[in-house]
Parts: sequence; structure tokens; C-alpha cells
Amino acid sequence: MLDPWANQLVEYEKLFGEFGLKRIEEGILKRIKNKGRIFGRGIVFAHRDLDKFLEAREKGQEVAVMSGIKPSNEFHLGSKMTADEMIYFQKEFGAKVFYAIADLEAYADNGVTLEEGGKFAVSNLADMLALGLDEKNAYIWRQSQEVRVMNMAYLFSKRVTDAALRALYGEKEIGLYFSALTQAGDILLPQHPDFGGKKHVLVPVGADQDPHIRMTRDIAAKEGLVLPSSTYHVYAKSLSGEQKMSKRDPLGVLFLSDTPEIARKKIMRAFTGGRATVEEQRKKGGEIGKCVVYELAKFHFLEDKELKEMERRCLCGEVLCGEDKEMVAEKVCDWLKKHQERKKKMVKKAERILEVGE
Amino acid sequence: MLDPWANQLVEYEKLFGEFGLKRIEEGILKRIKNKGRIFGRGIVFAHRDLDKFLEAREKGQEVAVMSGIKPSNEFHLGSKMTADEMIYFQKEFGAKVFYAIADLEAYADNGVTLEEGGKFAVSNLADMLALGLDEKNAYIWRQSQEVRVMNMAYLFSKRVTDAALRALYGEKEIGLYFSALTQAGDILLPQHPDFGGKKHVLVPVGADQDPHIRMTRDIAAKEGLVLPSSTYHVYAKSLSGEQKMSKRDPLGVLFLSDTPEIARKKIMRAFTGGRATVEEQRKKGGEIGKCVVYELAKFHFLEDKELKEMERRCLCGEVLCGEDKEMVAEKVCDWLKKHQERKKKMVKKAERILEVGE
Repeated sequence: MLDPWANQLVEYEKLFGEFGLKRIEEGILKRIKNKGRIFGRGIVFAHRDLDKFLEAREKGQEVAVMSGIKPSNEFHLGSKMTADEMIYFQKEFGAKVFYAIADLEAYADNGVTLEEGGKFAVSNLADMLALGLDEKNAYIWRQSQEVRVMNMAYLFSKRVTDAALRALYGEKEIGLYFSALTQAGDILLPQHPDFGGKKHVLVPVGADQDPHIRMTRDIAAKEGLVLPSSTYHVYAKSLSGEQKMSKRDPLGVLFLSDTPEIARKKIMRAFTGGRATVEEQRKKGGEIGKCVVYELAKFHFLEDKELKEMERRCLCGEVLCGEDKEMVAEKVCDWLKKHQERKKKMVKKAERILEVGE
Repeated sequence: MLDPWANQLVEYEKLFGEFGLKRIEEGILKRIKNKGRIFGRGIVFAHRDLDKFLEAREKGQEVAVMSGIKPSNEFHLGSKMTADEMIYFQKEFGAKVFYAIADLEAYADNGVTLEEGGKFAVSNLADMLALGLDEKNAYIWRQSQEVRVMNMAYLFSKRVTDAALRALYGEKEIGLYFSALTQAGDILLPQHPDFGGKKHVLVPVGADQDPHIRMTRDIAAKEGLVLPSSTYHVYAKSLSGEQKMSKRDPLGVLFLSDTPEIARKKIMRAFTGGRATVEEQRKKGGEIGKCVVYELAKFHFLEDKELKEMERRCLCGEVLCGEDKEMVAEKVCDWLKKHQERKKKMVKKAERILEVGE
């Protein structure tokens, strides 16, 4: 059983056997022109019905990409990963972005008032815009104000049996089932008649969110809608190397709002794939698969050529962890400075879109 | 356990012992100036915190009365009873009426589309207006359009444990819990900041609806709101004398939209308290407590003097059932004609209030 509310790493291998996810394979990759980091660096490693989404696109049909955020904190690198995917699919496939701001959930789960949530929502959306979201091909809503989603959640609650919910999520409190049904409403909103009805919608998620996808696909089938497609990204590990990057573990998390100084400190203390001794590392090279600093470089901050060079120098023991940390920290700080400048210019626009502020 | 979704008569006596309802007693009655039929004829027989509601009113505080309807059919005498209560409390205590039109529930449970539901809603509301509702001191909403109720239902779902829901309602499908939480939202809407915040709200219900009241009172306590008060009316029996009058049993039900001819037929076939033989009835009088025709007269159609006379003549065997049926049918037909004329004039107003139609 996958638990979308736990904060655990999923064993990827089980996903393919037990849950029927498909690997991203050559047949799929061939159909994607510009692979970007998302497909070019293995950020997305599995999918459901991505082929059907691509087919719809190839036939010139309107497609959409859907995701959401709980506005209870600033963006971190985990949220950036989903944002990058949304923006990639918008650019690469012309997909209309549907973006749910789960302010009710932030209130109910984290005690973030709708007003505070509104502030985080503006900040999160300004990040999205600074990362490249084109708001002209997007629909962005706050959960507390989108009656269509709530109506769908209500209707779905009558279509889904308790047995089905328990099989998917285990024995949970009703509030979590309620959240899940609301998320089904979010995911199916792009197929609401007000948005042109049935269409192929891609939902980029982490593997732990797959129960929501399965439930929503069941509901879509019952409602005569197109089953949403999904892609699954690897987790951004915590900087400590232990768990997935999460807002619940602030020290292991790099926020897009961190000052360059703070970011540098976090990276200099991050977990790497260094060996027990310098000699061993010079001889065997670093254990790059375990290295969080390498992951930052790969998922977010280095260009192809730079990344190749980093891999080479690490694996042959030419460069040790300290030096790579310096190099990556430099890149991160540069990026953060530029991003934060871009973001500043986007705040007014974000407020306008969300109708928050004056 | 009371089941608000079953269609059974509740044993009234159990309510006081097991569920903590209080009888309407002299102390309460003394505080009500104009008792009307509601309190004068025992239509309301029990309450929770009615004394607190009266006290708030006596102190000159703003008070409200709340109820709702599932717009899946025309009004019948059961719906009229609740409507009469709403209108009585509005008139007698200056209570603002909050009236929920549960169109989503009508769709989810009965397959009534929102459009059809909109038509029944107009008809139901026109009935309310014809019965005397003052729309200037009322807030009327359709479930599908009132995002505040949905937001509250969402939040409440995180505050209520499964154990509490099961203790109240038994093991049910999640859709029913969802409905219950939405009803809690409806009942607490009058205390939303947009309506001036905390206040005493009276909810007139049938006894089978008490689980909703108990749950809502629990939630109100957790949310720091005033615990809603409630009154409990006796059931309008089915014309067959067997079950409570319900939309699910059309032949036993008198609709406010019935033509006088149909209404007359239904009454002439109704169950009475007649004895096995004419002799026995002449000698012992009728069993008036079992008589549905007497109930119609008492709850809806006869003035005090007429009712006293009906009782006297029945109980001493002076008049037999056939004659009383004729007399009551005549009253009902007269009333229906007048009501239907009044209602016709209210349709446009109802459309305007609900923003339905052109």
C-alpha cells in the first residue's frame, strides 16, 4: 500500500509489479522531440498512459497538464521539480496548465489561515511565473473559491465505495478521504464542460501520490471522462540524504527563498557519496548514486556538459567532495540570485491572477 | 441508533431516554406568546436548547431559523409542516430564515440534474412564499453554488473522527458522511462571519434527523460557535396510516400541487380510526389517535373551533368516517385552490431569488 500522506521513500521496483506503472522506455522517448531535463536526465521514470497523451497531442487534440500546491510554505526544490515539469509540458506540448492552490487543505492540515495561505499562494505562483509558466495558457484556482471542484468532490463521494477507498488508502480518517475526493475534483476539472469537456490531461506526481491517480481514473471511467495520464518523478532527496525533500524537514530542504548564504551553508553540510578515506576516494572515485550534491546538479543546476564533466571527475577520483560542493554551491547561489530577481517582478502579476491584495 | 436515511417511524419515547431530547413543557410554553398550531396543537413535541434560543430572543439578540429541502419533487404535507415551522418562527420571533436547497444531493441521490433541480427549487420556494415566507428576512441558497458551505464541510471533515461518525450514523458509505458534513455546513452557515458571526439558530426537524443535529452541535462546540437549538415535530403519517409521509410513497402523499380532484380521491381512500361496525362506532366513537384524516385537519386545515367540534362529534360517535372525510376533503380542496393561486403569483419572485430562468 502506498500512503500519500506519509513521508517515506517508495521502493520504485514495487511500483511496476504491484501497481502497474510503466517504465519510460525507448518507444515513448522517441516520440518526444525535446527531452529536456525531465526526460533527458531520468527525472520522470514511470507513467500511466503517457502514450495516450502523446497520441492525443500528435493528433492535434487539445491537451492539459494538471498539478497543485498546498500554500503552507515557500517553494523548495521538490516543488520546483513539479513546477519544472508543468512548465516543460506547457512549452513542449502546448498543454494548458491547470494549477490548484489547496488553501483549504493548508488550513485544515497545517492551520494556515486562508489569508496566510493567500500570501504563500502569491509567492508560490510568482515562483512558477519566474520559472517560466505562461499564465496566458493556464487556469489557476484556489480551492476555497472553486465551487466546481467542490461540487465534483460531492458527487464523487456518492460514486465511490468505502471498500474502494480502504483498498486504495487503508483505514484513514474521513478528512483524508475528503481530501482525496477533492483532489479527484481538481484533477478532473480540466474536463468540466466550462473548460471544453473531455480531454487528455497529464498529471505529474511523485510515486507516493499514485493512489490519488488510481482513484481518479476509476472515477473518470464511471463518469465517462478520459482517464487522466500521469508521470512519476524520482524524489528530490533531503540534503541529509535520508528522506525525500519535504516541507516537514526544513533543515534538509533548499527553499527558493533561501538567501545565497544560507543555501551555501546547507550545501556545504549536505550528504555526498564520499568514501571513508581520501586515498580510497582517489582510487575508487565517489559513490555518485548516493550523492545529494550531484542530484542537485543533475536535477536542477548544471548544463549537460558541466554535468558530464562533474560525473567524470568524481567517478575517477580526480575531484573530492569539498571541491564539488563549492562548485555546485556557486551555481546554486548564482541561480537563486537571478531567480529571486525574476520572481520579484512577478509578484504583482501573481496577485492579479489570484485576485489577492489590492 | 436513529437513521436519517431510513424511512421509518421513530419510537418517540426512546428519544427522551436515549438521546437526551427534552419535552416541550409548561415552562417553555409560557414563554411563547402566540403558540400557533406549531406549539398549540403539539406539532412540535421535543427540543434541544429551545430555552436558550428563547432567552437570546428575549434579550433582543439576532436569531435565525434554518432548514432545507432536496429539490427532487413537489412539496407535500410533510414539507409543508417544516415550511410552516420556518414561517412561524420567522413571524413570531423575527428570526432570519436560512434555507438550503440541496440540489447536489438531489442529483447524487435521485439523479435529478441541477437543471431539473433548479425547476423544483423554484416550485418549492414559490410554495414557501405562498405559505407566507418573507423573503426580505431570509437567505436562500443552492448547495451547488454556496462555496462557504462546501468550505465548512471540508474543514469539518478534518475535525470529526470516523469513530464519532460511526457512533452517530452507523457504518455507512462515505457519500452519506459527506452529505452529513455538508448539512453541518448548512446548519452553521448562519454563524459565518459574512452573516454576522455567532448567533442562536433554531433548526426544526423530524426526530430521525437528530443525528445531524448532534453531530453539528459537536462541531459547533469545537469551532467555538453557538450550539444550534432544534425542535422536533411529529411525523405526518402516510395517508395509508402506515408510514411517515414521504416522497418515496407517492400514493400515500398529498402534494400541494395535487388537483383538488386527486386530493379528494386520496382523502376518501385514507386510513381512519373507524371501528369494525357502525354500531360499535356509534357506541364507542372513532379511534381518533389513529385517524389520518383527523391528522390532516389538526396539522393543517381546520381552525380551532372546527377542530374541537370534529373531535367531539367523532369521539361520541355522532359522525362517522365517511362524513368527516367529506368535510375534510372539502376544506383541503378549498385550501389547495387558494394556495395554488397564491403560488402562481410567486413563481417569478422565486426565480428571481434563485437566479433561475430568464
